[in-house]
Amino acid sequence: MHDHPFDHAIALERIDADRYAGRTSDAYWNSISPFGGVTVATILNALQLHPKRLGDPLALTVNFAGAIQKGEFEVRVRPVRTGRTVQHWSFELLQAGEADALITGSAVFAPARATWSDTEARMPEVPPPQGIATAPQPPHIPFLQRYAMRYVDGNPLQACDDSTTCCWLSDLPLRKLDFPSLAALCDALIPRLFVRQGASSPVATVTLSVNFHVDGNELAAQTGCHTFTRARANAFQRGFYDQDALLWSESGRLLASTHQVVWYRK
Amino acid sequence: MHDHPFDHAIALERIDADRYAGRTSDAYWNSISPFGGVTVATILNALQLHPKRLGDPLALTVNFAGAIQKGEFEVRVRPVRTGRTVQHWSFELLQAGEADALITGSAVFAPARATWSDTEARMPEVPPPQGIATAPQPPHIPFLQRYAMRYVDGNPLQACDDSTTCCWLSDLPLRKLDFPSLAALCDALIPRLFVRQGASSPVATVTLSVNFHVDGNELAAQTGCHTFTRARANAFQRGFYDQDALLWSESGRLLASTHQVVWYRK
Repeated sequence: MHDHPFDHAIALERIDADRYAGRTSDAYWNSISPFGGVTVATILNALQLHPKRLGDPLALTVNFAGAIQKGEFEVRVRPVRTGRTVQHWSFELLQAGEADALITGSAVFAPARATWSDTEARMPEVPPPQGIATAPQPPHIPFLQRYAMRYVDGNPLQACDDSTTCCWLSDLPLRKLDFPSLAALCDALIPRLFVRQGASSPVATVTLSVNFHVDGNELAAQTGCHTFTRARANAFQRGFYDQDALLWSESGRLLASTHQVVWYRK
Repeated sequence: MHDHPFDHAIALERIDADRYAGRTSDAYWNSISPFGGVTVATILNALQLHPKRLGDPLALTVNFAGAIQKGEFEVRVRPVRTGRTVQHWSFELLQAGEADALITGSAVFAPARATWSDTEARMPEVPPPQGIATAPQPPHIPFLQRYAMRYVDGNPLQACDDSTTCCWLSDLPLRKLDFPSLAALCDALIPRLFVRQGASSPVATVTLSVNFHVDGNELAAQTGCHTFTRARANAFQRGFYDQDALLWSESGRLLASTHQVVWYRK
């Protein structure tokens, strides 16, 4: 598994308990900066490597404050408060030559705890991924070659008045799901603006949140490398739109919900 | 307007550009700490008071790391990066005697910008608030006396298998909406667990995000003091559940979307 390009992309070297050195990945490069999802995954990797980590990730908010340049960076993570059932973290990503953080954010970790449980967000009945053609990707965006998207509701790039897409999504090559890869998948969906306008145009994620609905044991027990995703926007206003999405495992287990705000030019 | 208890509750005294002194409000007290929504609103007030603020709030994530005690507190806000179209902030709330922050979080501000716009999340057709009875509130929770809830889909406290509620929500006494009050309303909805279990039990918001879908001029132009809210949970798992909600104005304008993760005991 550690030969997968994703593992290379999120790899970190420990400087001390709170500081981790990484390097941008050409395999997951976007147009002018790294694919945001791999940045989120790298930060989650740093949090998981920290010796004071309590349990598994529950919630994560990542703010994209400045564009990361090719090369080395440092992730700084700090446990803010650790209780018996909840642990709060803050983090930053910095690069040499930049006085201010390029990424800021916060995370919540929690140990598994037995309680009354129920899932309301059920996966729609859809055909399995294996029978659906992979959507063609624009060849000039490196990170898009690292994901396979199989739309169950047709070509998303036809201008329409509803931004909802339903899509099987997986790493390429296939890779067993873990928290970092799941976080990255949350950012790999086609931008809602492209769905509405039927074409691509400049967009940039401003802030992204992920809520995990499985713990580490439950996630490890999932079979299959595909996630089913349903995503939609609530509104496109004054240069920003939002994206709400849900991700399920192949067997229909709810894995994550995610929310992001995206800047767009026009 | 400034005689409204909400304005007293979120009032701050400037220490310097980045530091603001406040005090908890008995009128917005919850069981063992302040109502989270008024804490969110107070932080938003600090951000709005900052001399370097650019435009209006777009997104906000607030992490409830430790319980705030009755008395004075300090809000520290810091502009991380200011671009031409987006400004990123970090903030903390501290109290004397506590070495670590009780609240951490981040916000994004942005100036209004003319672009293609559209709202997909439409308000359902519902009767106006004036004809609907206000739901009774438990008298021992002070902050609940500051909000009126009018359910359009019946008594929410009947155990059921769907946590969705549709409710008109307003300040008491009525108060014209602004960004701080709108942020507070995002946290004033009945906890999803109570809807599912048909009874109240210990819960605590862990992290809360708000996305604003109007700018300051659009918000000021809304008439009516009620917001229509539709809220639901995706899942209740291992001691935490999520809440996704949308808030519209009386005239059906989408004002905000909000997401939170809530700790529960059992």
